[in-house]
Order: sequence, then C-alpha cells, then structure tokens
Amino acid sequence: MKLATLKDGTRDGQLAVVSRDLKTAHIADGIALTLQRALDDWSFIAPQLQELYEQLNAGKTHRSFDFDPKRCMAPLPRAYQWADGSSYVNHVELVRKARNAEMPESFWHDPLMYQGGSDDFIGPTDDIVLASEEWGIDFEGEVAVVTGDVPMGSTPAQALSHIRLLMLVNDVSLRNLIPAELAKGFGFFQSKPASSFSPVAVTPDELGDAWQDGKVTLPLRAIWNGALVGQPNAGVDMVFSFPQLIAHLVKTRNARAGSIIGSGTVSNKDAGKGYTCIAEKRCLEMIADGEAKTPFMKFGDTIKIEMLDANGKSIFGAIHQQVVQVGQVGKVGQTAASR
Amino acid sequence: MKLATLKDGTRDGQLAVVSRDLKTAHIADGIALTLQRALDDWSFIAPQLQELYEQLNAGKTHRSFDFDPKRCMAPLPRAYQWADGSSYVNHVELVRKARNAEMPESFWHDPLMYQGGSDDFIGPTDDIVLASEEWGIDFEGEVAVVTGDVPMGSTPAQALSHIRLLMLVNDVSLRNLIPAELAKGFGFFQSKPASSFSPVAVTPDELGDAWQDGKVTLPLRAIWNGALVGQPNAGVDMVFSFPQLIAHLVKTRNARAGSIIGSGTVSNKDAGKGYTCIAEKRCLEMIADGEAKTPFMKFGDTIKIEMLDANGKSIFGAIHQQVVQVGQVGKVGQTAASR
Repeated sequence: MKLATLKDGTRDGQLAVVSRDLKTAHIADGIALTLQRALDDWSFIAPQLQELYEQLNAGKTHRSFDFDPKRCMAPLPRAYQWADGSSYVNHVELVRKARNAEMPESFWHDPLMYQGGSDDFIGPTDDIVLASEEWGIDFEGEVAVVTGDVPMGSTPAQALSHIRLLMLVNDVSLRNLIPAELAKGFGFFQSKPASSFSPVAVTPDELGDAWQDGKVTLPLRAIWNGALVGQPNAGVDMVFSFPQLIAHLVKTRNARAGSIIGSGTVSNKDAGKGYTCIAEKRCLEMIADGEAKTPFMKFGDTIKIEMLDANGKSIFGAIHQQVVQVGQVGKVGQTAASR
Repeated sequence: MKLATLKDGTRDGQLAVVSRDLKTAHIADGIALTLQRALDDWSFIAPQLQELYEQLNAGKTHRSFDFDPKRCMAPLPRAYQWADGSSYVNHVELVRKARNAEMPESFWHDPLMYQGGSDDFIGPTDDIVLASEEWGIDFEGEVAVVTGDVPMGSTPAQALSHIRLLMLVNDVSLRNLIPAELAKGFGFFQSKPASSFSPVAVTPDELGDAWQDGKVTLPLRAIWNGALVGQPNAGVDMVFSFPQLIAHLVKTRNARAGSIIGSGTVSNKDAGKGYTCIAEKRCLEMIADGEAKTPFMKFGDTIKIEMLDANGKSIFGAIHQQVVQVGQVGKVGQTAASR
C-alpha cells in the first residue's frame, strides 16, 4: 500500500492512504491519525490501512479525493531516527579519488553511516530554504526504509522482516561546509540541513520483483532544472543492502519503530548513468580535467527526484523542490512543483 | 517546576508533575498525556502544569502519590533530536594530549557537536544492556537542555529564550569502538549506545542563581560502584554555554520542540575535582605514567550521577544504573537503585 501525510496545520499531519496510481487518496482517520501511530502498532493498524487501500484502488470508497503532492508533508514529518548509510561505495571512492586520497579497503565490508537530524523534515514540494549559496548547496538522491522495532544485535536476515516502508529522499548537503566539519572528527552536522522525502511511503510489496534481497532494483531519476542528469539503478553497485545497514545500526542498541535508514547517494560505476548529486559530477570532472566545472545549486534552482516502475509509472510520486534564500520564502510566488 | 515520565506500558509514558523535594508526584492527565505534547504547545500547557506543581508543593492535591524514580522512563523516552556538544574543551584537550595529538585552536571557538540516536532512551534506573565488556564501557556525566522551536539562524541570545527544561544525562560510550569509528570520518555511531536521563526534567527557574548565562554553576557528582569519583562544577570551564550550542545547531536548519542538546562530559581543569567519565581518568594516567591503569566498566558495575543544590538537596533525582550483559536482563534480581 501507499501512505502519505497531509498538511493539516499540526506537527505530524494527517495520515492518508493513496491509490496505487497516485490519483486519489482517503483520510485514514478511523484507523490512525498519524503515520508514527500506525508504525507504533503496525501489526494491528496495517491490515486496516491495507483494506482501505484495496477499496480505494477498486474505486469503492465514498470519501476519496484527488491526491495532490503539494499538500504532502514528509510521510514522517518528524521522526525519532534518521540514520544515513553510504551503500554506493563507488561514490565514496570517487570523492576520495578526486582529492587524491586512498579509500580504506574496509569501506567495502564495514558500512559508513551517520546520524542525521530528524526533527524537522520537509515535504516533497517544500522549498529548500537556506541562507547562502556559498555553502555549496547540493541535492542527494537516495532510497530509504522505515523500520518497526529492531532489537539490538539483529542479523540482516532478521532486520529484513522489520522493514515496513520505503521512501525516496533528497538528503540536501552543504558541500563547502563539509571539509572543515569532517576535519573536526565528529562527522556531518551543519553540512546536513533538513532532508525531504517523497509524497508517499510504500510497503515493499508495491515494488514487486524490483524488491530483491533488501535492494530496490530500479533507476532513481534526478532532474535538475528540468534536465535529466542521472538515472542510476538503485539495485546496482549497492554494496550494503538495507538489511545489512539496519544490522550495522543495531549492533550496540535497539532501533525503535519509525526509524528511517537511508541508502546514501545512489551511484553506479557506469558513469553513463549520470549522477544523483552534483558532488559526484564534480569529482568526475576533477579526475578527468583537474578541476570541477559544474557549479552547485543557486537560489531558484529546482530538483526533481523520482522512481518509475517497469511501466513508466511513478511509484513514490516526485520530490520536486526549489532552492530559496531565507527571508524570500513565499515571495517567489510558485513552488517548484507548480511550474 | 519538575516533570517526570512514568512507565505505563506505552512508548511515551505518562507525564507527571513532581514536587520540588522529589517526594510526591501527580499525574498530569487532565493537562497533557506526554512531555512531548506539553513541549509541542508549551505556552498553553506549561502554565497549567505550573499551577499543578504549586498545588503539589503546597500539599493541596488529593491524588498525589509517593514519587519513585524506579518507575521513571527518561523524561522524553524518545525524542526527535539529541545533539551532544563538547563544551568542556579541557576534556577534549586531555584526550588529544594522551595520544600525543595537538588540539586545533579552532576548538576553543567552534563547538564540536554530534547527532546522537534519540529513538530509544533508557530510564534513570534502567540497566545499561550491552553485549561485550571488550567494547570499553564508559559513563559520561552531562547536563542537557530541552528546547522549544528554535528558528534557523537564531543567535545565542534568542536561543536562550527557547530553553524549556534541563536534565542530567549518562551518555554511555563504548571507548574501544571509538578510534576505528572516528577514523572512518563520519563520527560516532556504534560507539554511542542508548543514553539515559535523570528522573525529572526541571524548568530553569528551579536552579535559581545557579542558572547563569545559560550555564549550570553546580557540581555534577559521579559515583562509580559507590565511590565518589568526580564532582566538577558544570559552570566552570564550560567554554560554550547552552545558548551558544543551540545557535551552532540552528546555523543551517530549524530545531523543533523537544530537541535535546547536551553539554558534553563535564570536566574541570582542576584535576582535584575528579572525573565524570573513565576515559578522562585514563588520559590523566596516560599523561602522568605513560599507561592507563583504571579499567572501563564491567558487567555488574553501577554508576550514579546526580546534582545537589546549595543545600545538598538533589535537583534532578539520580541516574543510578547497572551495566548488564545482554541476555542477563531481569536475572540479576536487583536494579542499581534498589541496592
């Protein structure tokens, strides 16, 4: 099934079930007010949501309405955990190579993961509001899973059974803040502002055969200012599957229901597949020509991130955002998605 | 006022108001079910809690009961944000000195901060459950604040007004996992298991004159296996005040209500004040004798962290925990606090 959280003026929004074709939606008010509440009691709530979903797809509901991604918050507008991996080690290797650094061999078997802020996620068509272009504003296209409760010490096989939902992510990064921040030794912090998520979160069964061994074997499309710049396959070159990432997370602690785990920037070794973050393009330029030519995002730039199924239908709806300078919010007149 | 969250079988527990002397409590059920809900609508909810608090202190409530820290969850059993600073730069400098490394001068004016897991906090007397002593189990005594909504770009002066509550923290650390983890460049992750918090969270006015310029000017006491090992003053050598830490946090994003910001391990330059984490003691030994002699915690060890006011009365109640091997939970028979 497909689930969305609609803006209703509250911090956590209103849970809605969305039809498979993303055309209609139905409030889940008789079932669970919010997605977090559904996740807190999934085995009881999910079957009720599934039933509503089937009725909605069959056109048998009486209070359905047109689904509009612009009304969406992130499926979890705030979450208790956002842990982001770097599963596409190819990307990590490129970044190192561009600065003439060796990547430790251990990166191929020990996942990189950082804890991100999760208190203030932004919706799929919300503006990316930042103070300065000098920070090196970049998008990062990723896939993420939402888990149920995962006990400490769980194996990848056990972790797989705790994956409840999948989403797309735009893990906005401030590239020019990263070097100084990483040099301090404590990891990313100011360089990772609020992330945004796709209009809907979907259960793994919605992916059909494309959900294989805890990976999503479909291209992730990144469209920057209207131009398709990347469509790497998320199932290719993903060194650590989602179950492996979750097992890494729970080595020394439990993960509780509603934890979001990201794949890291999707990247294929085949450079012909393009890029889902500008940094990767710049690294390739650096390696080829000794200098990066593609600039980072400017105020007014748009980024669209989506994933289509084998029939060309959008699975998650599109993240479609515009970068806006703080203080200019609401003055631009149009959101990215309304262009 | 003083607030606690009582175990009631739910994920978020039951909000209660606790008397100033920590002897009695009263369920806040007519006001707010959980602490997060109170923080979500603080200006409306806090005055009602304050009124109940005053009645409780005056002995005018009819449904009060004895307050028992063993019934407490963390004040926020799960939170949307836990960001931990390293304000006691003396501690950072000692750690570097022990491994013959220079601390960058920038550390004196640019705060170190990492994002921690916040989905599964443990209560003040809950066991610290871990799989292996080989991980180098350590306690870390800290002070933390809980904020309301803090807009991106807020100054320290603005941030000060958004501090709602203070708590004590035991930021459990796995010292032997840290070197390899930091070498990966993404900061702490597996080396920071679930943190625990004091029985009550208090509003800043409860600290009286001890709340000065966004610092708490009282000793933090660490009692390891019954022996007082440290009582550094949390207001001394705190290079970055809480408002400064919050301003660092919100440079590139908003912080939303219920965000928890930690001070880092409390540490004074005066080594006579002892230590609130074993790592610091070991660093001093390393610098003096070339080798660390004090071992990390063993299964069965207890740690008590508390803060007394000028009259020797506990402000927050005590964190009092035992380290227990996973699989042995509930088999030990007694919690640390019942000894």
